[in-house]
Amino acid sequence: MKRREFVTALGVGAAGAVLAGCTGSESGSEQKQAAAKQEAIKWKMVTTWPKNFPGLGTAANALAEKITKMSNGRLEVKVFGAGELVPAFGVFDAVSSGTAQMGHSASYYWKGKAAAAQFFAAVPFGLNAQEISSWIHYGGGMELWKEVYEPFGLIPAAVGNTGVQMAGWFNKEINSLQDLKGLKMRIPGLGGEVINRVGGTAVSLPGSELFTSLQTGAIDATEWVGPYNDKAFGLYKAAKYYYYPGWHEPGTVLEGMINKKAFEALPSDLQEIVLQAGRAANQEMMDELTYRNALALKELVNDHGTELRELPSDVFQELRTVSDEVVFEEAKKDDLSRRIYDSFMNFRSLAEDYQKISEYGYLHGRIQTS
Amino acid sequence: MKRREFVTALGVGAAGAVLAGCTGSESGSEQKQAAAKQEAIKWKMVTTWPKNFPGLGTAANALAEKITKMSNGRLEVKVFGAGELVPAFGVFDAVSSGTAQMGHSASYYWKGKAAAAQFFAAVPFGLNAQEISSWIHYGGGMELWKEVYEPFGLIPAAVGNTGVQMAGWFNKEINSLQDLKGLKMRIPGLGGEVINRVGGTAVSLPGSELFTSLQTGAIDATEWVGPYNDKAFGLYKAAKYYYYPGWHEPGTVLEGMINKKAFEALPSDLQEIVLQAGRAANQEMMDELTYRNALALKELVNDHGTELRELPSDVFQELRTVSDEVVFEEAKKDDLSRRIYDSFMNFRSLAEDYQKISEYGYLHGRIQTS
Repeated sequence: MKRREFVTALGVGAAGAVLAGCTGSESGSEQKQAAAKQEAIKWKMVTTWPKNFPGLGTAANALAEKITKMSNGRLEVKVFGAGELVPAFGVFDAVSSGTAQMGHSASYYWKGKAAAAQFFAAVPFGLNAQEISSWIHYGGGMELWKEVYEPFGLIPAAVGNTGVQMAGWFNKEINSLQDLKGLKMRIPGLGGEVINRVGGTAVSLPGSELFTSLQTGAIDATEWVGPYNDKAFGLYKAAKYYYYPGWHEPGTVLEGMINKKAFEALPSDLQEIVLQAGRAANQEMMDELTYRNALALKELVNDHGTELRELPSDVFQELRTVSDEVVFEEAKKDDLSRRIYDSFMNFRSLAEDYQKISEYGYLHGRIQTS
Repeated sequence: MKRREFVTALGVGAAGAVLAGCTGSESGSEQKQAAAKQEAIKWKMVTTWPKNFPGLGTAANALAEKITKMSNGRLEVKVFGAGELVPAFGVFDAVSSGTAQMGHSASYYWKGKAAAAQFFAAVPFGLNAQEISSWIHYGGGMELWKEVYEPFGLIPAAVGNTGVQMAGWFNKEINSLQDLKGLKMRIPGLGGEVINRVGGTAVSLPGSELFTSLQTGAIDATEWVGPYNDKAFGLYKAAKYYYYPGWHEPGTVLEGMINKKAFEALPSDLQEIVLQAGRAANQEMMDELTYRNALALKELVNDHGTELRELPSDVFQELRTVSDEVVFEEAKKDDLSRRIYDSFMNFRSLAEDYQKISEYGYLHGRIQTS
């Protein structure tokens, strides 16, 4: 998914800014309320998403609400949709400069600022949600992410995850490598580069044009997010085959970047609230999407005639081989990118051996015996 | 794992109670500190784990610390190891009666109080960590869990997860169903009932006796938790084969039960802090265990000569068939158990179809192309 496109497409910006969360009115004594109001710190959270956009805009609202509620309004976080205060891709600069104190986005949008940033969002054939959260918080990822953001006066935080996305909607069956030749697919970023190298043509299109472009045959395929978000966009009406799994975005991290000076000016209890709210939001998004995606998938297949297809193993192998090349080229861009690549890939190897006997091994057995 | 045993075995209770978390000394102005101290509410958190026991006792400490820090000491949570204030299995009654305000445990220990409680901890061939958290928070699980705990004046919360456990340590190879006949295995609960029904003998042993019992051949096998915890117990020195996956505990939930009256007496900001701290703790435990289990597994195999074995597919199928029978019998115990069973099983079916194309589907492809 390339968020720029639907942000433009949906024409966000008209909606007035709504305060996400209470301001302490439910709390204890009046005296305490008064004290809270007196001390209240007001933060702006700028986002790359349309205001209230399901799953993304709502996740930003939920994070802001947690902070405001837990702090009893002492730290009021007001959410701005893309275009309300700054454009969707103005989030990084706005938080870096202190125009806003927080941002809700995904770090692969900032590769123009720091090439290495995209390792903390999504990497083709990279870590899934469980793995990347573990890498960031226990495997050394956070220290590296902080190093990337330090020159910009930013503190990173992982505050959500989409889980494994879908490979996309296709009007052309993919039965062999040959079927990738000439495939005109809307897919941005590193995934798009991979599609180009295997003989396809990656195109860029705003979200509003996906449906029509698929329907008229201007493109053969498009990726978007997962069943819940894709259903909302009606893509099942314009394409027959829904391919899995999403090799290009296997566990996209949503980031909650914080202006470092603003963070350091907070008392330690509010700092802890900001950080823990992000951890809780991360768990909550996975809980929500696991349920909503499962429901949406069932509806797509049962009620809308969507044909689910797995990418054939030789196609998947080729995408893997080329992805590994493309990602390795990213590692060569600078020293920090190389160190992040090494840490990320070492973790993938370590985690994969464990997955075989734990989550993957168990699900394999449960599915085989269902 | 049966916690009663190691609690007894490790002889906990001697360690003095240590306050988990700060008491606001890092906060802002002196005035605010004074105010915080004046208002401070003190909660006791009783646990089923030995004080500071890696992964479990430490998870209770971390939860208490989050609450204390985020509230700037206005809500001080003091953690008690098993036996310090009440015995390991006195947690439920202590929190129900208000002797303590919180408990850190696992709900399958309370099946004597309410048969249905065990669905919120672990069910053979049940939900994994990702699924059970989604079921609880979005699939209707929490409403049912609250119904189970309501008569006891308790509010439930999911505050951690072990992930998929291991099937256990064996000194006898399991190559066919025949090898289960006469197998003397230490395995408690519903899993133990399954082992009995397939021709083995489930035995109960305190944690301290596992090592010696395996070494002397008094038992052929034992389950415990996962690589990180099992390594700490030295089980690799007493058994040759380490079987996976842990069909009997595929994503054991740690609960943070709360006395309802105590909760309702809190101002809304502290209520929110208690609940969000639990959500953050859940994410943190998975992050930590994913990393530590992966590291420990590598060490067991590379440095300690542990032989990893997958349960053969016909054995796995038989365990599945018998498990489904045993779990269905639980559902028949009362109306509430039946409703919980239906909700749980509907969710398993829904989630499994989605897993095939998302987390499982992706990991399958990544492993096949590694």
